[in-house]
Amino acid sequence: MTEPIVCLNGRMVPASEAHLAIYDAGVVQGATVAEQTRTFRHRPFRLGDHLDRLFRGLGYARIDIGLSREELARISEEVLAHNARLVDADADLGLIQFVTAGEYATYAGLSGRPVRTGPTVCVHTYALPFELWAGKMQTGAHLVTPSVRQVPPQCWPPQLKCRSRMHYYLAEREARLVDPEAYALLLDLDGNVTETNAANFLMVERGAIVSPPAEKTLPGISRATVIELAGRLGIPFVERDVPVSRAVSADEAFLSSTPYCLMPVTRINGMPVGDGMPGSVFRRLLQAWSQKVGLDIERQIVEGARRRQAAGEPAG
Amino acid sequence: MTEPIVCLNGRMVPASEAHLAIYDAGVVQGATVAEQTRTFRHRPFRLGDHLDRLFRGLGYARIDIGLSREELARISEEVLAHNARLVDADADLGLIQFVTAGEYATYAGLSGRPVRTGPTVCVHTYALPFELWAGKMQTGAHLVTPSVRQVPPQCWPPQLKCRSRMHYYLAEREARLVDPEAYALLLDLDGNVTETNAANFLMVERGAIVSPPAEKTLPGISRATVIELAGRLGIPFVERDVPVSRAVSADEAFLSSTPYCLMPVTRINGMPVGDGMPGSVFRRLLQAWSQKVGLDIERQIVEGARRRQAAGEPAG
Amino acid sequence: MTEPIVCLNGRMVPASEAHLAIYDAGVVQGATVAEQTRTFRHRPFRLGDHLDRLFRGLGYARIDIGLSREELARISEEVLAHNARLVDADADLGLIQFVTAGEYATYAGLSGRPVRTGPTVCVHTYALPFELWAGKMQTGAHLVTPSVRQVPPQCWPPQLKCRSRMHYYLAEREARLVDPEAYALLLDLDGNVTETNAANFLMVERGAIVSPPAEKTLPGISRATVIELAGRLGIPFVERDVPVSRAVSADEAFLSSTPYCLMPVTRINGMPVGDGMPGSVFRRLLQAWSQKVGLDIERQIVEGARRRQAAGEPAG
Amino acid sequence: MTEPIVCLNGRMVPASEAHLAIYDAGVVQGATVAEQTRTFRHRPFRLGDHLDRLFRGLGYARIDIGLSREELARISEEVLAHNARLVDADADLGLIQFVTAGEYATYAGLSGRPVRTGPTVCVHTYALPFELWAGKMQTGAHLVTPSVRQVPPQCWPPQLKCRSRMHYYLAEREARLVDPEAYALLLDLDGNVTETNAANFLMVERGAIVSPPAEKTLPGISRATVIELAGRLGIPFVERDVPVSRAVSADEAFLSSTPYCLMPVTRINGMPVGDGMPGSVFRRLLQAWSQKVGLDIERQIVEGARRRQAAGEPAG
Amino acid sequence: MTEPIVCLNGRMVPASEAHLAIYDAGVVQGATVAEQTRTFRHRPFRLGDHLDRLFRGLGYARIDIGLSREELARISEEVLAHNARLVDADADLGLIQFVTAGEYATYAGLSGRPVRTGPTVCVHTYALPFELWAGKMQTGAHLVTPSVRQVPPQCWPPQLKCRSRMHYYLAEREARLVDPEAYALLLDLDGNVTETNAANFLMVERGAIVSPPAEKTLPGISRATVIELAGRLGIPFVERDVPVSRAVSADEAFLSSTPYCLMPVTRINGMPVGDGMPGSVFRRLLQAWSQKVGLDIERQIVEGARRRQAAGEPAG
Amino acid sequence: MTEPIVCLNGRMVPASEAHLAIYDAGVVQGATVAEQTRTFRHRPFRLGDHLDRLFRGLGYARIDIGLSREELARISEEVLAHNARLVDADADLGLIQFVTAGEYATYAGLSGRPVRTGPTVCVHTYALPFELWAGKMQTGAHLVTPSVRQVPPQCWPPQLKCRSRMHYYLAEREARLVDPEAYALLLDLDGNVTETNAANFLMVERGAIVSPPAEKTLPGISRATVIELAGRLGIPFVERDVPVSRAVSADEAFLSSTPYCLMPVTRINGMPVGDGMPGSVFRRLLQAWSQKVGLDIERQIVEGARRRQAAGEPAG
Repeated sequence: MTEPIVCLNGRMVPASEAHLAIYDAGVVQGATVAEQTRTFRHRPFRLGDHLDRLFRGLGYARIDIGLSREELARISEEVLAHNARLVDADADLGLIQFVTAGEYATYAGLSGRPVRTGPTVCVHTYALPFELWAGKMQTGAHLVTPSVRQVPPQCWPPQLKCRSRMHYYLAEREARLVDPEAYALLLDLDGNVTETNAANFLMVERGAIVSPPAEKTLPGISRATVIELAGRLGIPFVERDVPVSRAVSADEAFLSSTPYCLMPVTRINGMPVGDGMPGSVFRRLLQAWSQKVGLDIERQIVEGARRRQAAGEPAG
Repeated sequence: MTEPIVCLNGRMVPASEAHLAIYDAGVVQGATVAEQTRTFRHRPFRLGDHLDRLFRGLGYARIDIGLSREELARISEEVLAHNARLVDADADLGLIQFVTAGEYATYAGLSGRPVRTGPTVCVHTYALPFELWAGKMQTGAHLVTPSVRQVPPQCWPPQLKCRSRMHYYLAEREARLVDPEAYALLLDLDGNVTETNAANFLMVERGAIVSPPAEKTLPGISRATVIELAGRLGIPFVERDVPVSRAVSADEAFLSSTPYCLMPVTRINGMPVGDGMPGSVFRRLLQAWSQKVGLDIERQIVEGARRRQAAGEPAG
Repeated sequence: MTEPIVCLNGRMVPASEAHLAIYDAGVVQGATVAEQTRTFRHRPFRLGDHLDRLFRGLGYARIDIGLSREELARISEEVLAHNARLVDADADLGLIQFVTAGEYATYAGLSGRPVRTGPTVCVHTYALPFELWAGKMQTGAHLVTPSVRQVPPQCWPPQLKCRSRMHYYLAEREARLVDPEAYALLLDLDGNVTETNAANFLMVERGAIVSPPAEKTLPGISRATVIELAGRLGIPFVERDVPVSRAVSADEAFLSSTPYCLMPVTRINGMPVGDGMPGSVFRRLLQAWSQKVGLDIERQIVEGARRRQAAGEPAG
Repeated sequence: MTEPIVCLNGRMVPASEAHLAIYDAGVVQGATVAEQTRTFRHRPFRLGDHLDRLFRGLGYARIDIGLSREELARISEEVLAHNARLVDADADLGLIQFVTAGEYATYAGLSGRPVRTGPTVCVHTYALPFELWAGKMQTGAHLVTPSVRQVPPQCWPPQLKCRSRMHYYLAEREARLVDPEAYALLLDLDGNVTETNAANFLMVERGAIVSPPAEKTLPGISRATVIELAGRLGIPFVERDVPVSRAVSADEAFLSSTPYCLMPVTRINGMPVGDGMPGSVFRRLLQAWSQKVGLDIERQIVEGARRRQAAGEPAG
Repeated sequence: MTEPIVCLNGRMVPASEAHLAIYDAGVVQGATVAEQTRTFRHRPFRLGDHLDRLFRGLGYARIDIGLSREELARISEEVLAHNARLVDADADLGLIQFVTAGEYATYAGLSGRPVRTGPTVCVHTYALPFELWAGKMQTGAHLVTPSVRQVPPQCWPPQLKCRSRMHYYLAEREARLVDPEAYALLLDLDGNVTETNAANFLMVERGAIVSPPAEKTLPGISRATVIELAGRLGIPFVERDVPVSRAVSADEAFLSSTPYCLMPVTRINGMPVGDGMPGSVFRRLLQAWSQKVGLDIERQIVEGARRRQAAGEPAG
Repeated sequence: MTEPIVCLNGRMVPASEAHLAIYDAGVVQGATVAEQTRTFRHRPFRLGDHLDRLFRGLGYARIDIGLSREELARISEEVLAHNARLVDADADLGLIQFVTAGEYATYAGLSGRPVRTGPTVCVHTYALPFELWAGKMQTGAHLVTPSVRQVPPQCWPPQLKCRSRMHYYLAEREARLVDPEAYALLLDLDGNVTETNAANFLMVERGAIVSPPAEKTLPGISRATVIELAGRLGIPFVERDVPVSRAVSADEAFLSSTPYCLMPVTRINGMPVGDGMPGSVFRRLLQAWSQKVGLDIERQIVEGARRRQAAGEPAG
């Protein structure tokens, strides 16, 4: 079989057959808790931490998936083991688990198909789309702060990695009006920086890494890795509200995110950050991370992008 | 064929085969705009108004569905015509259109299946679940205001009927801790009443219907019908911020929503509203509405519930 | 004399004769600053700290009680000395000082009685109502966050222990609708945890005690004791905004309050905290506190409750 | 008997013996709902409206006083009838009802006196202190906006006339630092005008009376009388948020309050309102009110003040 | 003399000699109140209303200019009379009055020049820069909402036309990053539309003109003219909070401002408003205005622009 | 030449001839970035830090002054060198740089004078007005918190030292109504202390210096000096939100500002701070600062004031 497999509600199915009923809570309400891990050399990185966060989110949402953390880890490893064989040795995978609140009987009503009870649980993978990042790793990403704001903690906790992300969709569209290459950097209702739709935002001021407060953003596991590496490198790490004007005046800025680890930010709202080039703290952290995982992260992205584009793989 | 049909991306398929790929934006981000219309005697009620709102929402989200309003109306009528034959003459249908931002190539990457471009467009129906409402129509619904708050207009506009509703899911769960029969009544960040997860909230004070301001809630089409009927009956209709404490002290309260039109509210946060019984303004409006559509709305619900339960149909 | 005494405006009177005129500012406006100390083995605990806080509050309210801190301490000791003889050796007392803004001449107008000028000063005691706490010490208190919010610092400073507590009364009533045994945990206007109506809230995350910021809650003297004990035990103590969703996901939670020192919290909004049992940090702190005061605090409560109930003493 | 009577918990007692136990909820928490009516020629004015508001407040606070509205009216009339005989024919009375949440057994614990269950209900009167208003009726009151802000509706509803008013006490003290004669005009958290500690604020702009929105302030019954009189006089009445800067620039301003009906405002934060003199809309309203009640309100105040001061009655 | 004159502190001086000392409060603090009137056929339009607003602003800022409203009107007419002779008969002028808090002695300290006491008062004119508006009158202006927000009413009242406008400068720069032709549309702290740096924002929804509430924006005199004309044309005019998402979905939008009266808006944040063309309500209002002043406003702008550009006059 | 010189747009001119056109952005919009340095014994103190902050501000405002930091330093030194000769050896100077966005062609339109392009750059000095501070250095400054609030960070960043300060002007006027000698202490929109119009606010609580958080106020260079000196003296320095009620209860308070370095605060809103006398932490810091610069700062102020007053120099 040359197709990836997906574990859907306990069954392994080919990726092309993995789908959700239109009356699934994941489709009807975006009532979905999700997690994403990446591999290095086909081995998952900090899978335990990701599963911990997933189960914490499920606990908060009071969704009982009927699987232990260990069972879900085992399924994840099984899906990974199968699918890793389908990519190059130099490529890597993103591993996704998502859990929805299940199917709604009301909407299913008349269809012949019986309604499944309990949550919908899905584990799947995708090949890391290096070609989306290669350019930005070298010259830096551009961020734009759209008028669309981050959903505040009173609606749902920032640490809940859920899939009700209409505002992310809207924010991205608005940001690209300013700069087609930009990512949206969402502000909270007070005008402070939170995160992009897929990454934590970090910046450097007078030698210290400055982060928005942990209680206001997703407690990123890549961000946790940054804290760990910064500690080892002797770089201070502080949490503080970051008004957008302060971000614009930072000496350096970067993003941390599971799929690409770290990405430099060189422009915010059209203004250069620092000297407009990837900064030295970013460089040191990325190097330390590469050493930790025994793989040159930036090179993998750059060369992987070239390879994938040569092979005519679909963007992403 | 005894199964309802669904129109999915231009094709009519049996309901049991209507599903979304796991990498559809509707599953990945809840980036979905939706609309719901109901029928009276199998004819859709104010379908034009619902389609107007849908297209306004798509415009705001900058999603081009590649269909005109008229084409979508025609498809909707076709789905309705087929599916209405599957329910009793005395029953009615809910008609749903939803549009997601389409499939994400990145996640689809390795699967053999080609990635569809353009948005995902779905039209389907369900039999109105009278049994969920029959009791509440007679003794009144209970509302509870959970700590989970409504997503504010700075994140997405209240008039955008989207499906990123994690907070609704959380709010319902929290409300039921107080009262297993309760619906959640969401407050905005200032502590004012907005709406339930499926209905506009309206109340009566000294003879006038009082509503939260239009710019802060979904501009409900049932609510618009209430305004129209109230005008005809000479009942004033005013918009005003409604702190929860004020709602609790109302003379009367009720919900308006497409599937059941109107439902009395007799208890908020455990306290009786007025004398704890469905109120007279509610009664007059429901009667006027019934006359307008030539069908006793309350009786349909009560008798429909009895019939469905006798037939052993699944709740909902 | 078998009745406790109360010092009211400089005179020692039997408790049954201690009352305020209906036109006293304490009755008319809740314009009262209060303090509460408890005894261990009939000796007051940190009385000096409590008096400091009282005088700071009076200073902020610009009320001059016409007594020095030392005079009030002496009166307090005198009341304690008398009243302690009326309770068991194993029981203990709560000692209360309260000061109102005095009597309002306008309302007193026609009565024959002359209007006293200057503030009303009262010192009294009560027997600690162990029976209210015994169950909760063992299985943990339940907290519920009502829709009623904490009065914000712009109205009066959180460090002012005043008696305008209508919101506490309302919050308690609302919380008990959810769970008759629950205490209300008040949120601030941003949805962050503040305190219950009688205790500071503390929680444990990854081994550290986390507290709402000192400038947003009453600077509890029991909380100060926790900080001191935690320092001695090597447990980190950090201050941070605590959104309710974060409290719900804590590893452990507990309350600190003068009368009972510490009480475990095992349920918030119906969800178990940690494993739903009193936690180990709580246990260590309570043990250290017991050692410090030479009295097993939990045992005193449990046994005291049994004794009081056996004696048919009024609850509380 | 030459002393006024007070009805306290169902018993008529001399005013000098009307007091609350120190462990009454009214003393301990300010958990008190209150109402005030005044007489004209010794007959209560709109007593029914005041009782309606009182019972609505009790309903919100979930306090059951165990008396019907009619019984409380009868008691009030009885107290009035007795006490009115003690004042001049030209004087009038303020009639107060207040209800606290009752006595707390915990604090009462050791006292010999049995603890009363149920709320504390008190009805009493006082002679209107004309001398406090006479000067201001002629030259106008001064208002100052202190840094202390109004308690927001999320804490308790503005329509609940409760006695947790520490912030009013603090606000008055702060205002008098600026101007010893000033009343405090409290702003809400957004900087908009709400009310003084005893009156609604109204102003005149281009011929219309402008009021802060009803849902943000106490729905004053004197304010309702203004609305009624304004309607009769053809003066528009509109509700709108009033930033303090707008109040300062009004053409005219005045207060409405039960005891004195209307009082002109001629200075806000040290700046003259309009030409710094009582305005014509104020004059017309006061005249219409006087006609309605058959008594020259301003003259009663001015002459009553002179008479009371001549008689050496206590201020207030 | 072929140079315009300026009246500066009571003296008529040539425009090229009109300047402020570097220690003037207008330079040091932006502590300046200003007003602008335009002419039609060289006669000022609603000069009285503009002067009223100016004096109200000065009153709020407690600046006494030592001139009566009539004296300032006379000076203004004199400046206009002289300067109007310098422009074409078909052109028109903007007339500006501004008043600063005067010169600061501290900074002037050592200079030989004596420090003037009292405010700085200046009256001057400029030729209306038709060329800046001609294109936009025909195809519509573009608006962009920058991250920079409007200064809230708690800092200074929106009705104070002052010159502390750093945020306008910043907002304009940010908006032009998105679209070099765009004006900045400033949002308030809640994300609602306020105004551009030089115009009121108005939009049309279902046939009615919708405006942000008067108390949150400058009470524009052109906006007042719109209200008057709309009344005459039978077009409803309502005030309501306008979240940016609602503005984007309007049927039509336009700006009102003294120099150009009305200007259509056809794009907000990159999205077309209505059908992306100047709307019919705009057309009707502009036509009515033209009739009122006896001059085709749009034609004057278009032809004036052509004439000025032909003459090589400086842009603006 | 006995007059100070000013460098205006690259030219050295006598102070009496330094002025801005009335259509300069500094006059029209307050679109000005400014900086101020003082001398000790005629040598500038931390000029480099001041220039850094100036250039950071210009960067944020996207104003390119066309000069390097070094060139501006050189000009500043040149102006200082000339002007220092005009004051006593014991006196010192304030050195100001300000940069506006330049001249607006639109307003300049008809004047004969050509419009300068590029920003307006000005460097000037003034003699330190010791007489304004001498009394306050000895008995302490009084602060009052007006209703006017600080412009929030969403409008412009607190670290941008700009000259749009209408609110400072208004705040000062309001504060002086309370106390003619008071400075205004501005609160943010949440009621927390920010700064006065010319100084950072610092207070002492239990031995530690407490400051509002750096991201919410101007990052004062004198404040930075305090941090440095406090570190050397072993006095803790913490940042925290400071509600006004907390400031009032501080043990000690003082201001830091470039011209006078430090000034004790002994009264806030009419209430004494601590014992109402300049505090010991203030004394220690001022002494350390004096040692650092080799000049008794307080004595210079007190004696300088006497000398200037004797010489009949203008106040300020």
